[in-house]
Amino acid sequence: MIRLTLEQARELAQDILRSNGFSEPHVQAVTATVLAGERDGCASHGLYRLLGCVSSLKAGKVAADAEPEVIDQAPSIVRVDARGGFSQLAFQAGLPVLLAKARDSGIAALAINRCVHFSALWVEIEALTDAGLVALACTPSHAWVAPAGGTQPVFGTNPIAFGWPRSGRHPFIFDFATSAIARGDIELHRRAGQPIPLGWGIDAQGQPSTDAAAVLNGAMLTFGGHKGSALAAMVELIAGPLIGDLTSAESLAFDAGSRSSPYHGELIIALDPRRFLGEDADRHLGRAETLFASIQGQGARLPSQRRYEARGRSAGQGVQIPQALYDDLRALIVAG
Amino acid sequence: MIRLTLEQARELAQDILRSNGFSEPHVQAVTATVLAGERDGCASHGLYRLLGCVSSLKAGKVAADAEPEVIDQAPSIVRVDARGGFSQLAFQAGLPVLLAKARDSGIAALAINRCVHFSALWVEIEALTDAGLVALACTPSHAWVAPAGGTQPVFGTNPIAFGWPRSGRHPFIFDFATSAIARGDIELHRRAGQPIPLGWGIDAQGQPSTDAAAVLNGAMLTFGGHKGSALAAMVELIAGPLIGDLTSAESLAFDAGSRSSPYHGELIIALDPRRFLGEDADRHLGRAETLFASIQGQGARLPSQRRYEARGRSAGQGVQIPQALYDDLRALIVAG
Repeated sequence: MIRLTLEQARELAQDILRSNGFSEPHVQAVTATVLAGERDGCASHGLYRLLGCVSSLKAGKVAADAEPEVIDQAPSIVRVDARGGFSQLAFQAGLPVLLAKARDSGIAALAINRCVHFSALWVEIEALTDAGLVALACTPSHAWVAPAGGTQPVFGTNPIAFGWPRSGRHPFIFDFATSAIARGDIELHRRAGQPIPLGWGIDAQGQPSTDAAAVLNGAMLTFGGHKGSALAAMVELIAGPLIGDLTSAESLAFDAGSRSSPYHGELIIALDPRRFLGEDADRHLGRAETLFASIQGQGARLPSQRRYEARGRSAGQGVQIPQALYDDLRALIVAG
Repeated sequence: MIRLTLEQARELAQDILRSNGFSEPHVQAVTATVLAGERDGCASHGLYRLLGCVSSLKAGKVAADAEPEVIDQAPSIVRVDARGGFSQLAFQAGLPVLLAKARDSGIAALAINRCVHFSALWVEIEALTDAGLVALACTPSHAWVAPAGGTQPVFGTNPIAFGWPRSGRHPFIFDFATSAIARGDIELHRRAGQPIPLGWGIDAQGQPSTDAAAVLNGAMLTFGGHKGSALAAMVELIAGPLIGDLTSAESLAFDAGSRSSPYHGELIIALDPRRFLGEDADRHLGRAETLFASIQGQGARLPSQRRYEARGRSAGQGVQIPQALYDDLRALIVAG
């Protein structure tokens, strides 16, 4: 393992993105996301993702200098056309309009279209909770997951994320795939030659399987049986056709085997507690604290607790990544 | 079993509610809900619920003649104070305002406060999909469910429902508890002296149990492990403190052992595809049909499919209820 200060990690990310030709706004936006992932101990959404950023660019699947277009769609809807660039800059472009609309209307939606997406959703959720808003976000991915009772992939891993602002504390945030497990975990088992637990997926004949390779060629399953499957369908619908963007099946077809990040849309909904509650907001938000205390008081964890602990450690000690990953990342830097 | 035409079932419900002193608007609103449940083969949300309506009234836990107050809270928020009455009339009172706000703003929220709630959420979701809107609804209940990793009840069964309008077809709707199973199912096992599957609940010591009585005295579990638990927490927050209403723990405390329906709030979010999509709405809604076809084409079912099949049967044949339930219901009618 090699240790980097957060500043060193930032410079590494910037050097990679800049030298490969990403415009400065994309360099800054993508760097902030992968740095947040690394800092919070989410290695799978950390610096590692820069490998995919560069390979997506080389495959012609992402626009390095796309300038997002912000469209004031309706009193409580803002749309951002990412024009084939990574999602982060599009989110940043839409954020001030979303905040203004949510504070004015009480509830508002941000639809990001035509973006290449690899970000963890909690990064975006946290931008909204930092502004005192409640937030919900979801996005399709590539069609790898079968519906409950089915045998063929239809859904993506279709994450759902939610955030609740807390005064003087880290926000309550969860962010999970509606698939039983991340696709990357199944790939790790395949490489290691290890069986996977029953319930993660089915083979190409639709039979339950513990063979990672067979499941990667078959279909993953959702978490929570028919309930998780219903949620996965909801994500397809509201972050796909509702916002005029691709379903996971359409996104996978567009990918045409390049193994790039999904190209599609994302839906973010923001709700302003002060518009719902008026002068009583502080009192009612305090009752949410009672709920959190009743969860933690019995020894259960709040979602994101591990992330915040990692964040605290990273602030003092920086981050650690495998030497091989560091070497692979350094090799991405194009000499000027 | 005894067979009733839908008209006979309606008259039975009306006679019970009217003779027990419910105001005519509540008689009509509650009858419509329990009749829809019975018609769609959801016996647990059908005529059976009238037993609870009357017992809640006798326990002083519901106002028989409450007139809901509609409050125009913000450009995209309407609140309805149910004033201690059943939720159905409050929903009806808020519905036209919610529809108007969603069509104007693109997305809008209806917060129902201080209602006594026993309705299946799909009934309300369907009112929104019938109007061409996408809808999401949730409500806490009574604190019976432990958080993942915990041992004590904090959450209610906290249902989440979603609906998507379909042109010329029944809407895509799901409506499920975030608990692993309905509390009523555990009670049925207790009465029958049958063990329950592992995963439904834990005993008072926090240990996994197959003993229905022990779980009823301990805590139920959520579906889907920590993911379902996170969703249950989200429901508590957005249909509790966010709308200035009770959490499941507060609702159970208010109930004070009377075993009445929960008294609290409900949040409904409506999104207008035509505001998101403009002229392209029909084309994109057609792409959702492709998604549904890819699910049904592999032999998987859409949620609600069984309900719609029951609805078709009931239209021709009426409904069947156990003779004992029919006798219990007839006995509720107070002679004039």
